[in-house]
Amino acid sequence: MPFINVKQLSGRSEEQNAQIVRALTEAYAGITGVDPEKIWVAVEEIPPTHWSIAGETFAAKKAKAAAEDR
Amino acid sequence: MPFINVKQLSGRSEEQNAQIVRALTEAYAGITGVDPEKIWVAVEEIPPTHWSIAGETFAAKKAKAAAEDR
Amino acid sequence: MPFINVKQLSGRSEEQNAQIVRALTEAYAGITGVDPEKIWVAVEEIPPTHWSIAGETFAAKKAKAAAEDR
Amino acid sequence: MPFINVKQLSGRSEEQNAQIVRALTEAYAGITGVDPEKIWVAVEEIPPTHWSIAGETFAAKKAKAAAEDR
Amino acid sequence: MPFINVKQLSGRSEEQNAQIVRALTEAYAGITGVDPEKIWVAVEEIPPTHWSIAGETFAAKKAKAAAEDR
Amino acid sequence: MPFINVKQLSGRSEEQNAQIVRALTEAYAGITGVDPEKIWVAVEEIPPTHWSIAGETFAAKKAKAAAEDR
Repeated sequence: MPFINVKQLSGRSEEQNAQIVRALTEAYAGITGVDPEKIWVAVEEIPPTHWSIAGETFAAKKAKAAAEDR
Repeated sequence: MPFINVKQLSGRSEEQNAQIVRALTEAYAGITGVDPEKIWVAVEEIPPTHWSIAGETFAAKKAKAAAEDR
Repeated sequence: MPFINVKQLSGRSEEQNAQIVRALTEAYAGITGVDPEKIWVAVEEIPPTHWSIAGETFAAKKAKAAAEDR
Repeated sequence: MPFINVKQLSGRSEEQNAQIVRALTEAYAGITGVDPEKIWVAVEEIPPTHWSIAGETFAAKKAKAAAEDR
Repeated sequence: MPFINVKQLSGRSEEQNAQIVRALTEAYAGITGVDPEKIWVAVEEIPPTHWSIAGETFAAKKAKAAAEDR
Repeated sequence: MPFINVKQLSGRSEEQNAQIVRALTEAYAGITGVDPEKIWVAVEEIPPTHWSIAGETFAAKKAKAAAEDR
């Protein structure tokens, strides 16, 4: 009966998202024995402009890294 | 003073979403007597590629069902 | 297939919570026609010390109101 | 960089929760290759009085089942 | 180690979102002393058709206000 | 109109939580100009047994560190 909500950076393929939800479901069911039909997983994608660590968005980190590469 | 967050499969019309938030607000206010101005509802839409039951996304379930129909 | 998450101030009775989840489920099913077995509602209680409007917790608002009553 | 939030019925042991977060982390890292240090999992426990399916709380379902057993 | 999730009406610029996550991170770190590298902020945008107060979406409020202006 | 949800490790004092919600509200209002009455902050506390990084709960990290100190 868990509801598993994954917030991740946007950009993964549909195939990889399908693998993620399957793997999380199997992991949870394997530990707990909960009927998989009762395990819901919802993946939400946060764009790099909307997620920060240490106050800096991933978009800004990437732009900075690109500038340093030049 | 509740914050009601609905995560649902994407694809409902704007009109139906408007009906959903109204109905949920009236239901909550009717039971609790809370001032409706203090009831916030936010609806989030999860695409069928990003929501799974039993480890299978709704997109995959639909594709499988379509294949079986043929 | 919605997951409805209610965050509300703590302190409601078990009976009232039972009424809230029933009313929200009926409201959502009534508008959308979704099978109620596919409607999950989870209520989370936030203590008045942990919820604020305009930067002031409900605990602080209540303490201030009590002081003004004297 | 995912934040994985699990909402589950309350009552699991500390040991089982530790296994759940480890298994989910390994599952996600295994599929995506994301550095495990960037995978956060937070488990939230919802009491059976606060979670419903089809508008009926788990507490009510259990009480009904117990009554039928007699 | 906080995960700060902001749900706001959609429509802010990328620059303003960058300022929001920075300001929230500095505010939290300033009060608690937590290492900013351990402060994650994720901003989610809810369209005005999907957020309501008192059961009325922001889109409906705006449409009504526009009609009254005429 | 934002709803700001902070998930943090449990254990902060009521006074510090009051400071956190005030500081976050001022930070958000300062950047956006939104009326503070429309800024809600809800802080949720996750016990160290229920939050993990790299698959290890904070409770386990602390127990390990204590063992190494001996």
